[in-house]
Amino acid sequence: MNALWLENHKLSFRKDVPVPVPQPGEALVRVRLAGICSTDLELVKGYLPFTGIPGHEFVGDVISAPEGAGDWSGRRVVGNINLTCGTCEQCLSGRSTHCRKRTVLGILNHDGAFTEFLSLPVINLHQVPDSVTDEAAVFTEPLAAALEIQQQVHIHPDDRVLVIGAGRLGLLIAETLSLTGCDLKAVTRHERQRKLLAGRGICSIREEDIPEGKMDVVVEATGSPAGFLLARKAVRPRGTIVFKSTYKGEQKADFSSLVVEEITLVGSRCGPFLPALRLLKKKKVDPAALIDARYPLSEGIQAMEHASRIGVLKVLLCIS
Amino acid sequence: MNALWLENHKLSFRKDVPVPVPQPGEALVRVRLAGICSTDLELVKGYLPFTGIPGHEFVGDVISAPEGAGDWSGRRVVGNINLTCGTCEQCLSGRSTHCRKRTVLGILNHDGAFTEFLSLPVINLHQVPDSVTDEAAVFTEPLAAALEIQQQVHIHPDDRVLVIGAGRLGLLIAETLSLTGCDLKAVTRHERQRKLLAGRGICSIREEDIPEGKMDVVVEATGSPAGFLLARKAVRPRGTIVFKSTYKGEQKADFSSLVVEEITLVGSRCGPFLPALRLLKKKKVDPAALIDARYPLSEGIQAMEHASRIGVLKVLLCIS
Repeated sequence: MNALWLENHKLSFRKDVPVPVPQPGEALVRVRLAGICSTDLELVKGYLPFTGIPGHEFVGDVISAPEGAGDWSGRRVVGNINLTCGTCEQCLSGRSTHCRKRTVLGILNHDGAFTEFLSLPVINLHQVPDSVTDEAAVFTEPLAAALEIQQQVHIHPDDRVLVIGAGRLGLLIAETLSLTGCDLKAVTRHERQRKLLAGRGICSIREEDIPEGKMDVVVEATGSPAGFLLARKAVRPRGTIVFKSTYKGEQKADFSSLVVEEITLVGSRCGPFLPALRLLKKKKVDPAALIDARYPLSEGIQAMEHASRIGVLKVLLCIS
Repeated sequence: MNALWLENHKLSFRKDVPVPVPQPGEALVRVRLAGICSTDLELVKGYLPFTGIPGHEFVGDVISAPEGAGDWSGRRVVGNINLTCGTCEQCLSGRSTHCRKRTVLGILNHDGAFTEFLSLPVINLHQVPDSVTDEAAVFTEPLAAALEIQQQVHIHPDDRVLVIGAGRLGLLIAETLSLTGCDLKAVTRHERQRKLLAGRGICSIREEDIPEGKMDVVVEATGSPAGFLLARKAVRPRGTIVFKSTYKGEQKADFSSLVVEEITLVGSRCGPFLPALRLLKKKKVDPAALIDARYPLSEGIQAMEHASRIGVLKVLLCIS
């Protein structure tokens, strides 16, 4: 089958990749659309030593499912990206995304979605409601990641919340946070972001206008040291900073000031799919507006290059 | 009056320091006992540019109180160390220890307790119950700081909790945490600590025996980079690390791993006095066992030197 292939930090388009053989419990899924995320771009730069097919945001159709798993064949699905053992302490404690033996679709020891077919355990799949378009459904995974913030941190309706980094994930974060009724602002650098946010009734704010020490919660979605410093400046005493990005290497932090101001830092990763699908079905979020470009799989390398440009939001691979 | 005086990182014993003139709302307190804390030792090393009388842990007697403040004269008291404005956003939001205009007893722009007399606002004072000895009451402030952890983090009775750094504050932290019924262990290096902990039914553990990624909550009370690395190793995915110490300068942290494991970091400082006094009154904690030495004020410099030795717990100044 056709696929993008990552090896030694080099991405290539290949036509001879074998169709995956589903393991016990796994379904075979034909990919319709796949989305390019910052983690994919970081993977190519060497964030993790992954070899194989990258990509973890997808919507597709079930081609085959294991016997006895139910009537999955032909259903349109999205899928949790963490393949878990179900028996370790993390799995048994309700933290299966932290399974110690996990593989991760397109990120860790399991081929991903930038291809025609992928395999995933049936228990990872979620059927997409008919009313949700492919171009919305392909955002289920990042939307779930955005919702993970509210799984971890209680956002009060009267909280002052700041999102730093209104990129492809940051905008989804802003969109989900705004549903709480909180006093939300997002730091923007581009007119495009401001317009997208304004269309959703979300205020933009320039870096230089951020009031010092006023925010109850700050979501740092840039992955940069500058973003953390800005978050640190903006958060109030006893406030919370959520790390919601891919960070490279070690960063410096002034632990003493975290103690004196009693700041809470929260790392945040994968989130729950069902709430994301519910919001998509109710049209409470409109991720498709973030789509900047569509490429066929054969032009996947150009698509990745496009996605890496400053200010570009979502780039999709249209596969089947 | 006699006092220890800190200036340009140099501590001296002085006999000619003027008795403080209470400002509006302030009481004059004659100090009975004062305790030496790691923050005092760090102050001398230059942690903050403080000039004046250090010391913030004390028990004393009210000599005079402002008219109309009630019948405080002659009462035995301990006192909140943050002097607050009562009108800023932090004060009005229930976070008065974070008052933007605060001064802090013996730490920031307000003379402290290593002296015969100190002044503090009456609203900062708490009467000590008769049944609580001076040698227990002098621990109210650090005990309150230990309890701040439970103000910030919900410790579940079935949580696995690790305290790193069973020093003068760490032991109080362990003692308060053990009252929750949690599965508590404290990292120890000295036989003395092990005995003190064992006497309270608290398990000690050696660094090399700490299981990896198992702890729900880790309290880092060493203030060292090594302590943070140990905490990071010990905490489980989605677990919490509490910073409960004085840290010097910037430290490095792997933000990426905090995101992947969804770790929460919580800075923790001053805590509530009333719960501390309740626990002392009920004899649920026994801080006096941590007293290693007593010095007269005139030997305060030797007392500070004694307190700075490795493994030494509480050193007291006996003043009146």
